[in-house]
Amino acid sequence: MILPVELKKAYRLLNHGPVVLVSSAHGPARNVMAAAWSMPLDFDPPKISVVIDKNTYTRELIDASGEFVLNIPCRRLAQATLQVGSSSGRDTDKFAHYGLEALPAEIVKAPRIGGCAGWLECRVIPNPDIAAQHDLFLAEVVAAAADSRAFADGHWNFSSEEWHTLHYVAGGNFFVTGETLEVSA
Amino acid sequence: MILPVELKKAYRLLNHGPVVLVSSAHGPARNVMAAAWSMPLDFDPPKISVVIDKNTYTRELIDASGEFVLNIPCRRLAQATLQVGSSSGRDTDKFAHYGLEALPAEIVKAPRIGGCAGWLECRVIPNPDIAAQHDLFLAEVVAAAADSRAFADGHWNFSSEEWHTLHYVAGGNFFVTGETLEVSA
Repeated sequence: MILPVELKKAYRLLNHGPVVLVSSAHGPARNVMAAAWSMPLDFDPPKISVVIDKNTYTRELIDASGEFVLNIPCRRLAQATLQVGSSSGRDTDKFAHYGLEALPAEIVKAPRIGGCAGWLECRVIPNPDIAAQHDLFLAEVVAAAADSRAFADGHWNFSSEEWHTLHYVAGGNFFVTGETLEVSA
Repeated sequence: MILPVELKKAYRLLNHGPVVLVSSAHGPARNVMAAAWSMPLDFDPPKISVVIDKNTYTRELIDASGEFVLNIPCRRLAQATLQVGSSSGRDTDKFAHYGLEALPAEIVKAPRIGGCAGWLECRVIPNPDIAAQHDLFLAEVVAAAADSRAFADGHWNFSSEEWHTLHYVAGGNFFVTGETLEVSA
């Protein structure tokens, strides 16, 4: 079941460094790309940062709309994650081409990608200088949700292998999020 | 054996989203803190970004020196990673207190932490506005190295459990970097 995530706990969806899918929309156009380079930036209100190359179609749609969704894929979306990072939405409707489901988001116009473990709906905090110089975007998380089979009550639950999230290495290689390790100070 | 990492492959040390230890120094003062929020920012020359809270002693040392090291701890440093994130270097020499080894870095004055899997020596790219507003630092990686038991020839090698890197969740909980998943587009 897809449930909202309390905003002040939204950072936990991203805290362990998973690869994300960045979905965007502007007017009738929409797109999705993969991004290994994203991280939380603040707790409450939650903010994130993400690198979006200036040559991508996603960048064009985000510059126009000021919004995007960070979708957190799990193991069974590994191939799709690689694929959407290997082609351009200028040439292809990646949703149709790779069989990705575009679900309506709660607040932003960019879609949520079906089958993901979690979603962070984001609104850009304008910083044109660092976007121009470093392709770096800062954004506020305005809504968050998760599939309760993967994340519930503010905590990841990786008891089921298929819901494990992914960490991107390079060239088609990922690491799957592994076992939990609990230590005390 | 500790070997240099080619600068254009240095991003691979950080690409999968591990927690890092941030070490810093200024004059005789030195410190180390944990940071879950860091990511690569560019390939060549390699750049990274990291969030350093303005209330930390690390922030004071980085503001003064313009340098730091991102150290990538592995499983056996999990407890120390939690500990150095739970106390302030203003009160305690964390190296002595938690038995951490400070090794000389190649280029910067901040030390490398012994026993880590990899090291990224960083020089701050001044962006005072985003540092003041968001505690966000951008930096160029000026040297990188790794323990060849964990990372060699530009690739992670997690065949030995003790060298697996860590992903921080919250409250003493980490995920260990898990199995490799290779997919083709």
